[in-house]
Amino acid sequence: MQRLAIGIDIGGTNVSYGLVTEDGLVKLKESFPIKEFEEVHSFVDYLSTRINHSLKGLNREDFKLIGVGIGAPNGNYYKGTIEFAPNLKWKGIIPLADLLREKICVPTYLTNDANAAAMGEKIYGGAKNMRDFFMVTLGTGLGSGFFANGQLILGHDGFAGELGHAIVDPNGRQCGCGRKGCLETYASATGIVKTVIESLEKTQEPSVLRKFTIEEITSEKIYKAALENDLIALRAFDFTAKILGLMLANTVAITSPEAIFLFGGLANAGDLIFKPTKAYMEDYLLVIYKNKVEIKPSSLPENDAAILGAAALVWHENPI
Amino acid sequence: MQRLAIGIDIGGTNVSYGLVTEDGLVKLKESFPIKEFEEVHSFVDYLSTRINHSLKGLNREDFKLIGVGIGAPNGNYYKGTIEFAPNLKWKGIIPLADLLREKICVPTYLTNDANAAAMGEKIYGGAKNMRDFFMVTLGTGLGSGFFANGQLILGHDGFAGELGHAIVDPNGRQCGCGRKGCLETYASATGIVKTVIESLEKTQEPSVLRKFTIEEITSEKIYKAALENDLIALRAFDFTAKILGLMLANTVAITSPEAIFLFGGLANAGDLIFKPTKAYMEDYLLVIYKNKVEIKPSSLPENDAAILGAAALVWHENPI
Repeated sequence: MQRLAIGIDIGGTNVSYGLVTEDGLVKLKESFPIKEFEEVHSFVDYLSTRINHSLKGLNREDFKLIGVGIGAPNGNYYKGTIEFAPNLKWKGIIPLADLLREKICVPTYLTNDANAAAMGEKIYGGAKNMRDFFMVTLGTGLGSGFFANGQLILGHDGFAGELGHAIVDPNGRQCGCGRKGCLETYASATGIVKTVIESLEKTQEPSVLRKFTIEEITSEKIYKAALENDLIALRAFDFTAKILGLMLANTVAITSPEAIFLFGGLANAGDLIFKPTKAYMEDYLLVIYKNKVEIKPSSLPENDAAILGAAALVWHENPI
Repeated sequence: MQRLAIGIDIGGTNVSYGLVTEDGLVKLKESFPIKEFEEVHSFVDYLSTRINHSLKGLNREDFKLIGVGIGAPNGNYYKGTIEFAPNLKWKGIIPLADLLREKICVPTYLTNDANAAAMGEKIYGGAKNMRDFFMVTLGTGLGSGFFANGQLILGHDGFAGELGHAIVDPNGRQCGCGRKGCLETYASATGIVKTVIESLEKTQEPSVLRKFTIEEITSEKIYKAALENDLIALRAFDFTAKILGLMLANTVAITSPEAIFLFGGLANAGDLIFKPTKAYMEDYLLVIYKNKVEIKPSSLPENDAAILGAAALVWHENPI
């Protein structure tokens, strides 16, 4: 009999879930839009019905469902809640793990997306043999999670690892959180777009990006422009890497990880972001850390990473 | 039979050691200057002879020596070594724990001063019931150590917790480490002296501190001047607290502790440093952390804290 976990990734636009084996094989994957669910109860009804339907497609005697893991924005592992997530319609504190447990009747775990990504890397990916590592997700925002002494560090209240809201410059860019100069206003897909728009508006310098309106500029377009050696795009990557490299050096000074994994949209730019980030980080590192800390891409397949990370929560709590 | 530990504090000027009970009673305390020991072997010979002499003063049947704990600058817990300590005469990598173990023949543990302070707070002090807390020592420099999930976090290489060398401003003050803008160039006894000297040199503003030469100014004199409402001294505390508050807010965003303990010379300024540091930190905190993280003084008696912290390493490794 095979042990299975369900991994659920709650995004601002879509929800994905999958049935995952202990070896990290995603046996079945489904996805649906989340926006139509005005309140969480109708969402839980729909999700649990779909999951139960998916499970019926398998032979009951072939597997045992061990648990459900959920990665969600502003997820609190200790409480199994989503708390004040700005990109979801459900406001306040949402006890999603409890609500889903009532429907699916197996242990249910929930944490934020970046912690789930760190857990996925630890259980299935490049951090399998690491006790101390840091995970940074460079998407619309910047999320982070870390392991120390072989354990996911959640902090006193379950909200450790919010590196995206460490402040680079108290007089810097306005952040969605209400404060100024948070790292994610610079080092994220949104951040690099802002950097490019600032450059386009401040100068008359030619750029292939000028053929787009401001609203049309995306991090993907900046990436493509950089590949064509567009100077504004290349400088935007360098500027992003400089700020990210500084904050990673400061993170190393606190947590001293073996490696830092970069994941998500902006990390797909490969050498354009990894090389300068590593170079700036090394510049900013105290001598005792120099040439010790790797910056690596996630080794999980991008399309399955969120589901694998969420499912990994189950194996973390229910080891073989 | 009473279980005893020896706690040893290696400073740049003096070495102190004490015999400590599990309850944190310092039964005997000795101190001697370190500068005369040009190399570590003569130091270990002398120290072990003195310790063995101290032990002979006790009735052998009344106690059992469980181990030796050492707090030392640039101490590496994993290796038991002091590595490239700028304030000691012994250069390179010094295997002090091994050298002392050969002489005293009990398990010997070594870590840096700030980790020892954190361990002392956990075993004997205000962090007894905390699983997640941060310790900051504000002395000549700034040291730090932290617990997460109830464990001291050492990082991959044993050097976690170097918050003093997190960079506030890459174009900021020259640091002894060779880089610029490290937190300890601002938030430390040395840092606040620099801040005051800059003010005195830049302005003609009256100050009680002008009666001293630049070389005579110390953090204690700045503290006394601030108590007399000297504006240059008061502004120096505010400036120090603002930078420290920002970096503590960033530290909270990464580690999410229940409390931050401030310890050491500058922390003795009490409200002058605690109040503005707390206020600035709250300003800079992401909303999910606001009004959750206490900033507290250490509850260990200052004169015994270093010895208690070093001895606590022994109880951590050899619990009752």
